[in-house]
Amino acid sequence: MTSAVPLIERKKRGEALSAGELRALLNGFVAKEVPDYQMAAWLMAVSLRGMTDDETLALTQAMVESGATLDWPGLDRPTVDKHSTGGVGDKTSIVLVPLMAAAGAAFVKMSGRGLGHTGGTLDKLESIPGFVCELPLEEMRAQVRRIGCALVGQSPELVPADKMTYALRDVTGTVDSVPLIAASIMSKKLAAGARSIVLDVKWGSGAFMQTLEQARELASVLVRIGAGAGRGTRAVLSGMRQPLGGAVGNALEVREAIDTLTGAGPADLWALTLELGSHLLEMSGLAPDAAEGRATLVRLRDEGAGARMLERLIEAQHGDPRVVVRSPDLLPAAPVVRPFSVDADGARWVAAADARGIGEAALALGAGRRTKTDAVDPAVGVVLRARIGDRVEPGQPLADVHARGDDAAEQAFAALRTAFRLSPDPLPPAGDPYETVG
Amino acid sequence: MTSAVPLIERKKRGEALSAGELRALLNGFVAKEVPDYQMAAWLMAVSLRGMTDDETLALTQAMVESGATLDWPGLDRPTVDKHSTGGVGDKTSIVLVPLMAAAGAAFVKMSGRGLGHTGGTLDKLESIPGFVCELPLEEMRAQVRRIGCALVGQSPELVPADKMTYALRDVTGTVDSVPLIAASIMSKKLAAGARSIVLDVKWGSGAFMQTLEQARELASVLVRIGAGAGRGTRAVLSGMRQPLGGAVGNALEVREAIDTLTGAGPADLWALTLELGSHLLEMSGLAPDAAEGRATLVRLRDEGAGARMLERLIEAQHGDPRVVVRSPDLLPAAPVVRPFSVDADGARWVAAADARGIGEAALALGAGRRTKTDAVDPAVGVVLRARIGDRVEPGQPLADVHARGDDAAEQAFAALRTAFRLSPDPLPPAGDPYETVG
Repeated sequence: MTSAVPLIERKKRGEALSAGELRALLNGFVAKEVPDYQMAAWLMAVSLRGMTDDETLALTQAMVESGATLDWPGLDRPTVDKHSTGGVGDKTSIVLVPLMAAAGAAFVKMSGRGLGHTGGTLDKLESIPGFVCELPLEEMRAQVRRIGCALVGQSPELVPADKMTYALRDVTGTVDSVPLIAASIMSKKLAAGARSIVLDVKWGSGAFMQTLEQARELASVLVRIGAGAGRGTRAVLSGMRQPLGGAVGNALEVREAIDTLTGAGPADLWALTLELGSHLLEMSGLAPDAAEGRATLVRLRDEGAGARMLERLIEAQHGDPRVVVRSPDLLPAAPVVRPFSVDADGARWVAAADARGIGEAALALGAGRRTKTDAVDPAVGVVLRARIGDRVEPGQPLADVHARGDDAAEQAFAALRTAFRLSPDPLPPAGDPYETVG
Repeated sequence: MTSAVPLIERKKRGEALSAGELRALLNGFVAKEVPDYQMAAWLMAVSLRGMTDDETLALTQAMVESGATLDWPGLDRPTVDKHSTGGVGDKTSIVLVPLMAAAGAAFVKMSGRGLGHTGGTLDKLESIPGFVCELPLEEMRAQVRRIGCALVGQSPELVPADKMTYALRDVTGTVDSVPLIAASIMSKKLAAGARSIVLDVKWGSGAFMQTLEQARELASVLVRIGAGAGRGTRAVLSGMRQPLGGAVGNALEVREAIDTLTGAGPADLWALTLELGSHLLEMSGLAPDAAEGRATLVRLRDEGAGARMLERLIEAQHGDPRVVVRSPDLLPAAPVVRPFSVDADGARWVAAADARGIGEAALALGAGRRTKTDAVDPAVGVVLRARIGDRVEPGQPLADVHARGDDAAEQAFAALRTAFRLSPDPLPPAGDPYETVG
C-alpha cells in the first residue's frame, strides 16, 4: 500500500474506511509494511471514533483472510461453535462440547489459556493426566470425523492477524474497543468454519464487560458480524457477578464439569449449558426448537452419553479417560484444604461473592497466570460452599481453599475476605436472567 | 518508568495526566524505553481528547528539559524572540531581526527549512553567497554579544524531544493537534531563552490554520504556555489568504526583505514587521508603548540602521554583505523570467491570489521541497504584480515567473491559473486586520 497516514487521518476525523482500505491496512500490518506505530495510532483512533457495522465486518473478514480457514467437505454432521467472553469458574465448554457431539453435531472448540483473574479452558484440560491440547490440524480433523468433537488450542495457522493485532492492542491501551473485540472474536469463529455459532457474552464484576449495557452492545455487534458473514449466530448474555458453578481452579473445575455431565453439578452451570446448547441444536437443525433441544440435552446427560463422549474425547487427545468415572482420583489434588469463614457480627446472608475477587484468590494460590510465561498449578483453587442469597450460620465455611501450603492459603483468605460480603437482611439469589440477541 | 499503558488509557478516557506523568512518558520516549507504538497511541489519544492548559504547559516544559537551554548571563540587552506558524512569502524575520538588534535587543532567531508549499527562512538565507546557518553554539553566542542578533538553524542540542515527537506525529496522522503544535512551538522558544516572545499565528488558505477561529485557539494556548513559563508572550493573528509581500522564492524573498529595510518593500510586509516589532519593543522595555516602538522602527529603517545591521549579520555568518546595498546582483537570478496573465473575459478585479496555490507554483519551479531530501533552487520563484482588490487591464501581468526553463515556467503557470481569480466587480483589498492575543 502507498501510505497508511491518510487512512489514519480519516478514521481520526470519524470517517468510515472502505473494505478495500481496511484490507490494505491489515495486510500491510501483517506483512510488516505498515509499522507498529501507524497501526497503534489507527487502533487508538478506532477506540475513540468506533467503526460502522460495515467496517467491523470488513475488518473481521480481512483478518480471516490473513490465514488458513477450516472447512468440512463431506462431513455428515452440522458444524457448531461457541465462544465465551471469559469469566471466573467458566467450565461450560467441557460440559457442552461432548453433549453436543453426542447429540449429532460436529464441535471443534478452540480455546485459549488463562491470564489474570480469568481461567483458560486449555489450562483446565491439561490438568487431566496426558491430555494434549495442541493437535496437528490433520489429527484434529480426523478426530472430529470419528467422534464429532475436539477441545484444542487456537491453531496458529488460523487468523495470524488477530494474534499480531491483539499483541499490539495489549501494549497500547486499545483492548477495550467493542469493534476490535468483536473482530477478534468473530474472525476466529469464522475461520474455524462452523455454520452455527453461539456467543456467551458475560457481564458483571468478573467479566470483561462490567455492565449489562456494554454486554448488549458487544453482543449485537458480534451477531451482526456473524449474520453478515452468512453464519447462524446468537448471543446469550449471562451474569458474572459471582463465579459460574462452585469450583475455581483447573482440576477442581474439570471435576465439576464431569459432575455436571453426570447430573451432580451446580444448577447455574447446567442451566447455562442447556441455554447455549439448545440454541445450537435449534440453529443447526438438530432440534426443531429450543425446548426440544433442552429435552435432548437432559436425556443425553441422564443416559450418560455426555460423560461417555468426554471419555472418548480425552482418550482421543492422549489423556487418561478414567478420570471421568472410574478413577476421579487421577486428577491432581492439593495437599492443603482449608475452610474459609468470616465472623460477620450477626450478618447471615451472602450479599456478594465477587467473581473477580474469588478469581484473584485462585490466582494467589497459583491456579492462574499473572504474566504470560507463568506456570499454573493444576491442583489448587477455591470451591465455593455458599452463593449470593444463601443463609449461613456463624462460622459456617463459605468456601474451601485448596492450596499448596498454609502461606498460600492465607493469601487466598485475604482475597476472599474482600470478595465476600454478608448482609443482616435476606437477599434474593443472583439468578440474573439470560437475554438472547440474534 | 513502569508502564505507559495506564497513562495511555487515562488519556483515552479524557483524563488529564500530571506533570510528573507527562515527564515520565516523554523522558521514556526520548530514552527509547517507551516504544514508538505506545507514543503513537498516546499522540492519537491526545489528538482526539485534547489536553488541559496544565498538561500542555507540563508537556512543553518536559520537552524543554529533554535537552540544553540557552541563557544569557551578563548580557546588557533584553532578549526577544519571534515565531511564525508559517506561510507563503513570509520573509519577516529577515527584516525584523536586524531592526530589533539595531533598536538594542538581543535576537537569536532559530528557523527551519521549507517543506511543501511553505518556504523556510534557512533556505532563503542560504541564497546569499557564503551564508552559513549552522553555527556552533559558542560562535553564535559570541556573535550575539557583538552585534545583538543571529539568524540560524534550530540547534540540535535544544529540545531533542521535539524532533523525535514531530517525526512520529508526521507518520501517524497526529500533526494537526493544537496542544501538540503549541508544545512543539513553545518548547523551542522557551529553550532558546528569550524573555519576550511574539508569535505570528497565520490563518487562511496558505497557512496551517485554515480559519481565524483555529488561529485564535492556537494563539491563546501559545500565550498561556508562555505566561505559565514566566515569559512575556503575545500572539498576533495575521491573514494568509494571499502571500505576504510579492516575492515567493528564496533569493527573490531576500531581495524583497532588503528592499523593505531600505523603505522600498511592499506595504503588507512592512506593516507586519512594525506590528510584531512594536510588541517586542514594548514587552522588552525598549519602548514605553507600542506607538513609540513603531516610531523607533520607522526611524531605524529610514536612517539605514536596519540595512547596516543586516550587512553585519551576513558578514558575521560568513556571507557576502555586498548583496544588501552595493551589489544586489550577487544574489542568484533565474535565466528565464516570464510574465503571467489571464484572459478573463471582462473581469477586472483580483478576487483571489491564493497563497497555497502560489506556493505550489514556486514549488513546481524548484523553490521548495516536496520531500525532506530535495534540494532547493535559490534563484527561482514567483513575484506577484497584482494583489487582491487590484484592478488589472486585459493582458496585464499578474505575476512574473522566475524559472530555470520554459517547461518549469509552464508548470508554474498551470498552478497560477488555479490560484488567481478575477471578478467583474470591484472588491476591497484583503487587508485582514491584525488581532492581538495576550
